[in-house]
Amino acid sequence: MASQASALLFPAPRPEGFIKSVLTALGFLGEDAAIIAARMTEADLRGVDTHGIFRLPHYCQRIRAGGINLRPKIRPVRQNAVMALIDGDNAMGHLVVTYAMELAIRKAAETGLAWVGTFNGNHAGAGAVYSTMPLAHDMLSMYMTVANANHMPPIGGVEMILGTNPISIAIPAGEEPPIALDIATTVSSAGKVKLAAQKGESIPVGWMVDRKGQPLTDPTRAHEGFLLPIGGYKGYGLNVVIGMLAGVLNGAAFGRNVVDFTKDFAARNNSGHMVLAMRVDNFQPADTFKKEMDRVIREIRESERMEGVDRIWLPGEMEYYSIRERQTKGIPVATAVVEGLRKLADELKVADRLE
Amino acid sequence: MASQASALLFPAPRPEGFIKSVLTALGFLGEDAAIIAARMTEADLRGVDTHGIFRLPHYCQRIRAGGINLRPKIRPVRQNAVMALIDGDNAMGHLVVTYAMELAIRKAAETGLAWVGTFNGNHAGAGAVYSTMPLAHDMLSMYMTVANANHMPPIGGVEMILGTNPISIAIPAGEEPPIALDIATTVSSAGKVKLAAQKGESIPVGWMVDRKGQPLTDPTRAHEGFLLPIGGYKGYGLNVVIGMLAGVLNGAAFGRNVVDFTKDFAARNNSGHMVLAMRVDNFQPADTFKKEMDRVIREIRESERMEGVDRIWLPGEMEYYSIRERQTKGIPVATAVVEGLRKLADELKVADRLE
Repeated sequence: MASQASALLFPAPRPEGFIKSVLTALGFLGEDAAIIAARMTEADLRGVDTHGIFRLPHYCQRIRAGGINLRPKIRPVRQNAVMALIDGDNAMGHLVVTYAMELAIRKAAETGLAWVGTFNGNHAGAGAVYSTMPLAHDMLSMYMTVANANHMPPIGGVEMILGTNPISIAIPAGEEPPIALDIATTVSSAGKVKLAAQKGESIPVGWMVDRKGQPLTDPTRAHEGFLLPIGGYKGYGLNVVIGMLAGVLNGAAFGRNVVDFTKDFAARNNSGHMVLAMRVDNFQPADTFKKEMDRVIREIRESERMEGVDRIWLPGEMEYYSIRERQTKGIPVATAVVEGLRKLADELKVADRLE
Repeated sequence: MASQASALLFPAPRPEGFIKSVLTALGFLGEDAAIIAARMTEADLRGVDTHGIFRLPHYCQRIRAGGINLRPKIRPVRQNAVMALIDGDNAMGHLVVTYAMELAIRKAAETGLAWVGTFNGNHAGAGAVYSTMPLAHDMLSMYMTVANANHMPPIGGVEMILGTNPISIAIPAGEEPPIALDIATTVSSAGKVKLAAQKGESIPVGWMVDRKGQPLTDPTRAHEGFLLPIGGYKGYGLNVVIGMLAGVLNGAAFGRNVVDFTKDFAARNNSGHMVLAMRVDNFQPADTFKKEMDRVIREIRESERMEGVDRIWLPGEMEYYSIRERQTKGIPVATAVVEGLRKLADELKVADRLE
């Protein structure tokens, strides 16, 4: 936590309570505000600072512009024993995906396996917050979503019609931290490029190219180029497939009809998400499986390391330890972010000023 | 098909028939030999030359060393309405995954969604050959497998305990070629590095590093280094997760217990695969969905191109056109490969010499 010098540390319930107060002041029901605050704080606990309380001012812009339904009726419009299609009714994405994953868990508990898709939703924050929900039920899980802004063209193209479309996969373990992959299909995010520009740093070759395909390393020139997919045509293909499974299949946005949520705060996003949950005891008794997962995790972690490397990490392990550390020591929030949040509290006449 | 100068062109039934003859001579039942030959020829038709008839001599080495069960009883050892765990009984992987995908299609036709895992299998060739099987049933599909040799360490490691672990995802379209992603989670394959060494060419930065993490571009030094995952820790994480879903969950090999099928021809591989099939009409009438897929595919293909780029390709589109072209014009097989196959025919006293 190198950022602590310019950050304030809060016990986890404090930012969570603050988010809830702000959302309630904006007109959300207490119950909905609590769910959104919980999902955002889980992102902060995991160390995914870009998807926690940091996002609140941005979400508030959309909410105050009328871009979010404060009284949504999230509901299945098609369903059977193994799937559901959920109309998010333009609710905050955190509510839509929580609803979808809880439904997937209930269906998978009955049948063994379930796939739930959503449309008419919004940005839901960090993928692993959702993909890890089924772990307590001894289920593995997938989550995919269409990003809420397009920063990448197809391979060979210059028109930015693709987003960072992420995928998250979680798998239970026993004594070891569970596996929780959570990756964008672009090498970097637009946010990281902006951050480098703010800091006056250059960005590595491989993050962006210009319209002629030449490496772009000056982040202040970001508007002249675009993000690159991981592994060239491989990541491009994965990105497109995620867009089709989380977007097109659900009748949600993908491609030119994606609304850039950093620029247009009022237009309906029609953001799409998909979740899948499966009982691991379909295949093995859960305890046997989790013991074997522990063995494999340890084999990877304890394999021979490169000179100078202290530790080999498994997907989601750093985030697991971040949760434990931040639950004990508190969540660091950058001073500049805290200032913005206090200004927001003043504007909304919220008594809680995150002191 | 730049390689045609040093290749012979065969109508598709010729190599398929040859493979069948060789496998029958080795003791396979005609029915099984036909399935394996069909899957291998489909790879050749798709243009995945590394996974078609090119592999036959290698497969034969294993078969002749007793590493493959010629009379397998492939069967479910656990199953319910939405899943099955298949014991491949050490059969050729092509038989095991064909069995698994056909079962997944039957189950998904009934329930809407199915996940089938396999253990005790072997190398099955090209992933998209299997993931595209459900397309004719208006189903989308996933396929993952644990590679049959380890060429990559975890991020920060130097011990090669991970393979190229590929993923394939297929999605139906209407008039447009269906989407068929088929990617390894490494930037390159060991085979491509070997090929560069044979040709005396260097390999690009980003394919391999040495044991100190420095770029390795001389393919004759490949034994001093290892392959890299796509997108660094992102591809590493995806690779591990695929290994767990296709390997660990099924009680199949992943990690140190993977048998290097290029070095050990007799040991049981216990290769693991997973397939998933889902009816698209769970979510939308199939025709509506396929029309919308066509629209999105065209939007991507027809988006603005980079200077000098003739065409933007969708995942699986090149392979779709390769199938059509090779069905008409024939399958090119490199002269050196044909010579090896004729030698094989002589050894096995197979009358068909692929003339």
